[in-house]
Amino acid sequence: MHNEFGAPVSECYSPASSAAFRAWLRNRYGTLEALNAAWGTAFWGQRYGDWEHISAPALAPTVVNPAQRLDFARYTSDALLECFIGERDAIRAESPGVPITTNFMATNCPSVDLWRWAGEVDIVSNDHYLTAGDPRNHVGLAMAADLTRSVAGGRPWILMEHSTSGVNWQPRNVAKRAGEMARNALSHLGRGADAIMFFQWRASRSGAEKFHSAMLPHAGTSSRMWREVTALGRALGRLTEVRGSRVRAQAAILWDWESFWAQDLEWRPSEDLSHRERIEAFYDRLWRDGVTTDFAHPEQDLSAYRLVVAPASYLLSEAAAANLRRYVAGGGTLLVSYFAGIVDEHDAVHAGGFGAPLRDVLGLTVEEFLPLRRGECVRLDAGDLVGDVWADDIALEGADVVATFIDGPATGKPALTRHGLGSGTGWYLATRIDVEGLAAVLEPVYRDAGIAPADLPEELEVVVRHGDDADYTVAINHAEDTVEVPVAGEDLLTGERSDSSFTVSAGGARVVRTVRR
Amino acid sequence: MHNEFGAPVSECYSPASSAAFRAWLRNRYGTLEALNAAWGTAFWGQRYGDWEHISAPALAPTVVNPAQRLDFARYTSDALLECFIGERDAIRAESPGVPITTNFMATNCPSVDLWRWAGEVDIVSNDHYLTAGDPRNHVGLAMAADLTRSVAGGRPWILMEHSTSGVNWQPRNVAKRAGEMARNALSHLGRGADAIMFFQWRASRSGAEKFHSAMLPHAGTSSRMWREVTALGRALGRLTEVRGSRVRAQAAILWDWESFWAQDLEWRPSEDLSHRERIEAFYDRLWRDGVTTDFAHPEQDLSAYRLVVAPASYLLSEAAAANLRRYVAGGGTLLVSYFAGIVDEHDAVHAGGFGAPLRDVLGLTVEEFLPLRRGECVRLDAGDLVGDVWADDIALEGADVVATFIDGPATGKPALTRHGLGSGTGWYLATRIDVEGLAAVLEPVYRDAGIAPADLPEELEVVVRHGDDADYTVAINHAEDTVEVPVAGEDLLTGERSDSSFTVSAGGARVVRTVRR
Amino acid sequence: MHNEFGAPVSECYSPASSAAFRAWLRNRYGTLEALNAAWGTAFWGQRYGDWEHISAPALAPTVVNPAQRLDFARYTSDALLECFIGERDAIRAESPGVPITTNFMATNCPSVDLWRWAGEVDIVSNDHYLTAGDPRNHVGLAMAADLTRSVAGGRPWILMEHSTSGVNWQPRNVAKRAGEMARNALSHLGRGADAIMFFQWRASRSGAEKFHSAMLPHAGTSSRMWREVTALGRALGRLTEVRGSRVRAQAAILWDWESFWAQDLEWRPSEDLSHRERIEAFYDRLWRDGVTTDFAHPEQDLSAYRLVVAPASYLLSEAAAANLRRYVAGGGTLLVSYFAGIVDEHDAVHAGGFGAPLRDVLGLTVEEFLPLRRGECVRLDAGDLVGDVWADDIALEGADVVATFIDGPATGKPALTRHGLGSGTGWYLATRIDVEGLAAVLEPVYRDAGIAPADLPEELEVVVRHGDDADYTVAINHAEDTVEVPVAGEDLLTGERSDSSFTVSAGGARVVRTVRR
Repeated sequence: MHNEFGAPVSECYSPASSAAFRAWLRNRYGTLEALNAAWGTAFWGQRYGDWEHISAPALAPTVVNPAQRLDFARYTSDALLECFIGERDAIRAESPGVPITTNFMATNCPSVDLWRWAGEVDIVSNDHYLTAGDPRNHVGLAMAADLTRSVAGGRPWILMEHSTSGVNWQPRNVAKRAGEMARNALSHLGRGADAIMFFQWRASRSGAEKFHSAMLPHAGTSSRMWREVTALGRALGRLTEVRGSRVRAQAAILWDWESFWAQDLEWRPSEDLSHRERIEAFYDRLWRDGVTTDFAHPEQDLSAYRLVVAPASYLLSEAAAANLRRYVAGGGTLLVSYFAGIVDEHDAVHAGGFGAPLRDVLGLTVEEFLPLRRGECVRLDAGDLVGDVWADDIALEGADVVATFIDGPATGKPALTRHGLGSGTGWYLATRIDVEGLAAVLEPVYRDAGIAPADLPEELEVVVRHGDDADYTVAINHAEDTVEVPVAGEDLLTGERSDSSFTVSAGGARVVRTVRR
Repeated sequence: MHNEFGAPVSECYSPASSAAFRAWLRNRYGTLEALNAAWGTAFWGQRYGDWEHISAPALAPTVVNPAQRLDFARYTSDALLECFIGERDAIRAESPGVPITTNFMATNCPSVDLWRWAGEVDIVSNDHYLTAGDPRNHVGLAMAADLTRSVAGGRPWILMEHSTSGVNWQPRNVAKRAGEMARNALSHLGRGADAIMFFQWRASRSGAEKFHSAMLPHAGTSSRMWREVTALGRALGRLTEVRGSRVRAQAAILWDWESFWAQDLEWRPSEDLSHRERIEAFYDRLWRDGVTTDFAHPEQDLSAYRLVVAPASYLLSEAAAANLRRYVAGGGTLLVSYFAGIVDEHDAVHAGGFGAPLRDVLGLTVEEFLPLRRGECVRLDAGDLVGDVWADDIALEGADVVATFIDGPATGKPALTRHGLGSGTGWYLATRIDVEGLAAVLEPVYRDAGIAPADLPEELEVVVRHGDDADYTVAINHAEDTVEVPVAGEDLLTGERSDSSFTVSAGGARVVRTVRR
Repeated sequence: MHNEFGAPVSECYSPASSAAFRAWLRNRYGTLEALNAAWGTAFWGQRYGDWEHISAPALAPTVVNPAQRLDFARYTSDALLECFIGERDAIRAESPGVPITTNFMATNCPSVDLWRWAGEVDIVSNDHYLTAGDPRNHVGLAMAADLTRSVAGGRPWILMEHSTSGVNWQPRNVAKRAGEMARNALSHLGRGADAIMFFQWRASRSGAEKFHSAMLPHAGTSSRMWREVTALGRALGRLTEVRGSRVRAQAAILWDWESFWAQDLEWRPSEDLSHRERIEAFYDRLWRDGVTTDFAHPEQDLSAYRLVVAPASYLLSEAAAANLRRYVAGGGTLLVSYFAGIVDEHDAVHAGGFGAPLRDVLGLTVEEFLPLRRGECVRLDAGDLVGDVWADDIALEGADVVATFIDGPATGKPALTRHGLGSGTGWYLATRIDVEGLAAVLEPVYRDAGIAPADLPEELEVVVRHGDDADYTVAINHAEDTVEVPVAGEDLLTGERSDSSFTVSAGGARVVRTVRR
């Protein structure tokens, strides 16, 4: 129903949208006094005396009120959702009992808050296309699949679209090589997809997408692509029993579209601050360590996870902070990256200073931000760790210092800290460490969390779906050497059996059923 | 008449233009059914039911129908031409017998299809300005002159504008150094210009072009520029007899504005695809090898050429493909670069797969495009050839493999092929090789074509105009050492005579008349 | 009153502005004939026959008349000034006797001509914010302070706004480190500020500037920032007697907003031409050499200066040229950088060629500009000097050649010249030399001017304010080693006394009162 809500355009600035935005605001705030307070209109003399004076955030010579822009982003997601619900209910009235969905773009459509959308579809479905320029784009695929599963509340979902090979809208539309399409499909499957579909059946001779790959390409049926598509169809037929099984994650990464919207507003401390970059770095670290990961909303119950990572929690409500406090006090391990807990839901700095809502969880607040110059690096006294982009001037309130800055503007200040609260621990990292360096940062954090990173060959992806009576280990070898995966059972793709382990050929995959006793 | 039609702005999106575009479309297609079929409006549900619903291609959140945009480019060139014809006919009515022209910008005004324009002027004229940032900009000059001669059907033409020194509209308006203006003028003359003129007579103190060079500069008559301008005037006076003589080319490069318009549309396989870059590279190779080259429309008679090069024939009509087939079957040598023969005149992929119209000429089709990542290189097993930007996954249908990819996504696939058809040969090159590497690619191609590259000193430009009784060898030394040019006769510039050869001083030139016996 | 006139937007293109622009033009030119002549509308056929046909300079497919654009910049500054005067007079009528000012942004608001504004305020005030990305941004601060003092006619002024630490609107809002705020404040004070104020008192929780530093930061009073702010307050209290004292400069750099507006128009000889870059380079050279410098309008009396530098005098009126001639003939030393004396007040090239108005002052004119290619360098035969961006082809008319180009397009031509006129000398530099290289260029120029560069430790800033009975030496150490400053008296900050010199600690400062006898 519809297609990829929110892409390519989401925001509308027409008079009709301004009117709808005002109605949305009246519903949210009730009175102009409440709106003026929430938006901080006292600053720069922006006080509203009449609802009609409010409009969609127009282009301004300088900066628009950030709370207004944040609310407009919320309104936009809600307005699109209202459109979906209208369509859904019309269809449901005509076709009762038919499941209804709309294709999400989990990590690639920042304008819709899928935490709010997922409850409105009968089954979650997603579209995913590789980032052609990234040689390790299978990690981005895994992240999209894990986020899709997470917004689906852990239930199986549908891969509505992916491509057999290159697309047509990226700068350089790199083609998939032999076996790559099957690896992609099995990774989605391993991370919870119960159906694997493609855009598109047959390449169109005309129109805007004629260079997008298809199941049946311009070259016809005597082509590598057609042979691989039909082989994949046969392989999926052998995996029917996997349907309905679930993935269990040890760790969760916090993901909150509202926080991303707020962080992306203008006039932030540094343009090098990127929520996406930090999330991808921490996700990649967990992927390399073989730690299966969910994404979680900061206000949801987190007690099932051994480890929660907050790479980018700029906007953090008091309720979310209380939730994290409960999680840690109850025994959880929390790792918070810089520029977190800064503002509330109105993009207003929390009273008490930067990070104040997590003060007792982390045992510190941040006295001042120390953004680094372009290309500037800072060294830590732990291992050979080097940070860039950011440093904090931390005011300790009980945390233990695990690593200290030894040069740069924060020389002598804490860079990595650990703080006990209740039966759990809160970690804080005050600079940008790359994915290789994060290995050293996470080592003691894993220990606190009771997580043992998998000792897997490089670029071997392993994820397990748990059925009623059996586990299904999906092992995908993205590297160029044959490797071994230590699991017993039967490979559903080939019928091979083993009591100990299976080889996975270069570029190959296994789906091993292990019956539980 | 008028000035540089199509520059700096060509397209108009007003309601009046939309109406004129509709009239143009009605004339082209007759029925909406035909237009819907040609534009492939079935894709993305764009079917038109009423002519009035069609407009100039407006800005869209995503991509406009490519066939519509291609037709709008054709319409724009035609509308400008209609304007010219209207002006011309009005002048002709008042001043019968006076030759009428308008100054083209052969290689620098992509919006007008000069193949269609050249027939409407009484004599072709051209403006040319050097690319200041390019130290070898004399090659670009030669290419512009050769294209001007080609659209003039080989007849002499007029250089309406060039500059005595720097211009005022490039990023850095590098001045011409001593002798450079004369070399430029003689290169145009050698390539067919019968008149050499300048913009502008005297530098204006005011206005937008006051920093544009002039025959009479701000510095006045006691200046290098004035001395060189008057010397050039005297030199040209000695070359009167050259007028009317013709250039004969052994090779032709295909040039088709329609194909360029189509290739430049959005959502192509790689943004690194550039028709201009490929044409310049092949032209430069031929220039360095001393092979005089025409440009040719793909549907024109090619039988006079030993070699035809197609560096960028993305759009290739069935008629053009048939023309190339005739050319090769009749003994011609054709070299086709990648991304050729892909779409027909409606930007629709040819039935039968990529390159299908040239299947029997080249002995292959292309199963899949393999665009390379930014900066990615691929090696060939011939010489030390290295390609970038592009590779093809070729399906051979009879061609011989001359070179093979030895790494990258096309490992083991053909990179350079040769195929015999009738008494000719069709070559295909599947990756981007730079101008130095093209020497090795062209060596066997020249052999097939019976072309012997000239063994000239580096950066010595030699081109010959053939008169009724004599040949005129124009030799221009762009390098910093004195060289020898092996031609007998009389240098018209100095009156010197030789039975064997002339020296050409650093930065100097000769125009040698050799009387034919 | 108001805030930072001219920022962030200055120009207005509405019909009302067009009408006001026409009235301004009628007042300036009287007749359309005079306007047509001034704007050179004969070029490109732009002649106006009716005042109503003139509008604000609209977006054009190519280039707008440069004289029109230059006048529109003048009109804009005047229109903003008219607005200020209207506000001022209304306030004055209600509050007679209260001094009125508006905060300038001396070096950072190119759209207002402060030479015209300064006479309309009762006391000059300025806002200054560091360029965060520049590690030597204290030199930019000094330049802003010196320009502020200069537009104030040498009288003391008010620093209306600076920041306690980072701002919120730069790409990376680097925080000030310990002591930096005090150094900044004392540098303003040393260069003539009699009051030091901040934006802002207390950080706002909401709104567009919540990440801008404040006297009372989000972290509250137990913070480094608060401690340094209160310490600075105490220190300033000890410096009361400095108020009213004056700075005396040996050198002046010419600064003319009208010339900058003209130079920044389109279609200049090279986009690498930058008035700002050249002014900063010469200013930095004088700063490093400890030469206190004013900025001066080219038509003002210059006789008090030993040295006048013209780094960027593209537009130079005949009156200004006469003023410089008077200055040199009377014994002054003038150093002129390339691209100077090119156009008159209508952006029309001076009759007689480039630089003609200074012909007798410099003993040369410029026959042709030789802009260099991107990255191209040229060597001089003096020292190891290397230039880039630009070279001139100079026609000598009496000047002595001090350095010659030894490669590049101006090989063998003068690069640096010296010419005597009356009892003074005129120097000309024909290429871009960086700040290090300028040391060698300025050495003989200083000698002519009778200036002895101070032999100060690197990055030690020393400036003196002269009171009625005492001198106040402000010494600021921007480096990381303790240094010595040779001055006797009492440090007002600490009460320490010395008969010979004071140490200045790393990052520290002294304000030494020396009583004159």
